[in-house]
Amino acid sequence: MSDGRTVEDLVIGVLGGTGPQGRGLAVRLAAAGQRILLGSRDAERASEVAAEVAQRATTAAGGTEVSVQGGSNVDVAGAADLVIVAVPYAGHADTLAELATPLAGKIVVDCVVPMGFDELGAYVLDVADGSVAQQAAALLPDSHVVGAFHHLSAVLLEDLSRPTLDGDVMVVGDDRASMDTVQALASRLPGMRGIYAGRLRNARQVEALTVNLVSVNRRYKVHAGVRITDV
Amino acid sequence: MSDGRTVEDLVIGVLGGTGPQGRGLAVRLAAAGQRILLGSRDAERASEVAAEVAQRATTAAGGTEVSVQGGSNVDVAGAADLVIVAVPYAGHADTLAELATPLAGKIVVDCVVPMGFDELGAYVLDVADGSVAQQAAALLPDSHVVGAFHHLSAVLLEDLSRPTLDGDVMVVGDDRASMDTVQALASRLPGMRGIYAGRLRNARQVEALTVNLVSVNRRYKVHAGVRITDV
Repeated sequence: MSDGRTVEDLVIGVLGGTGPQGRGLAVRLAAAGQRILLGSRDAERASEVAAEVAQRATTAAGGTEVSVQGGSNVDVAGAADLVIVAVPYAGHADTLAELATPLAGKIVVDCVVPMGFDELGAYVLDVADGSVAQQAAALLPDSHVVGAFHHLSAVLLEDLSRPTLDGDVMVVGDDRASMDTVQALASRLPGMRGIYAGRLRNARQVEALTVNLVSVNRRYKVHAGVRITDV
Repeated sequence: MSDGRTVEDLVIGVLGGTGPQGRGLAVRLAAAGQRILLGSRDAERASEVAAEVAQRATTAAGGTEVSVQGGSNVDVAGAADLVIVAVPYAGHADTLAELATPLAGKIVVDCVVPMGFDELGAYVLDVADGSVAQQAAALLPDSHVVGAFHHLSAVLLEDLSRPTLDGDVMVVGDDRASMDTVQALASRLPGMRGIYAGRLRNARQVEALTVNLVSVNRRYKVHAGVRITDV
């Protein structure tokens, strides 16, 4: 961080933190010692889930105290230092359109996947801005938008009986300092690395590859992730 | 194969076999014992490269005889049992449009990436059919088109001083038997596995992810590939 803080000092907000992906990221990051603000449209529901996440993360952390609090998405956006967007794609644009002011000047990490399902399985939804991360950047002109955390199985994130995860976090963005911070945050997940993976204009295929991982999961009965080799 | 042949029995044609990706796949598959027909627009050039590839593959195979012969793309398309398309994207449509008849009934494996470069680095080119593999399928209505081999570094493929590669081959397609054959072929590359990765409509992001790997390569000074975890 340019202000001298390290990633460990940051309060991480998770918008859509009551969904599987948000909850999974919250519990793993909390267990790693990161302070978490868990956001939802429904602040009361957020507080309930935050209490559960805190309990599970404390157990996983061997009794070390963790910090997880719940609140509305707007309160979390305003109070957190760095915000992860884990809302459903259907609500992505509407949610962020209302948060441009509280998110101004902050790093916003988008992990939303534009995925639909039909009788042939999963497929990629078109996004007018090219990718969900680019949609976020268009809606949040004063934030530093980074794409990351797309390929992490919510099931494995939430399964704290497995202390170590297996995979890398591909990080895309246009602001190098923000990407460095997000890569460092990703590397706090046990067993994972944050890997620089190009500019925001190349976010689409990183998001969309999650659709292929769904196909892998169905075929092999696994929870697939991605590892970048030779790095 | 439905006719009782195993993948080891197949003669593999490589269109655009004089380029780095085609040559790299040819030398590795030849060293693994696969019979190769190496194609180019220029048959004489194809024969020259085939002789070089045969020599290097023989050395890598410890002196075991290998089979690599050169010819025109059209002759190779007609004579091979399975054909890998490794031509430059700019020539992809024109090349395949002329080969629909010799490729009818065959498995056609497309590894072409729609990639451009500008002052900001690599980016993904739009393909009217959605992906290069879908473009191949549109041009070759009587072939079984499969997408695969996009994420393999040509540098590492050609560097036979490294006997083992590190990565997986994501295989996309709509014909399950053809995909099984291509997965088996990919698994003949030492250290690699062919992984089922979804339908042809989800080929675009597999192709396009290569653009991100180029960004990884530039940032970390590596030759990145992809490994699918939990499989």
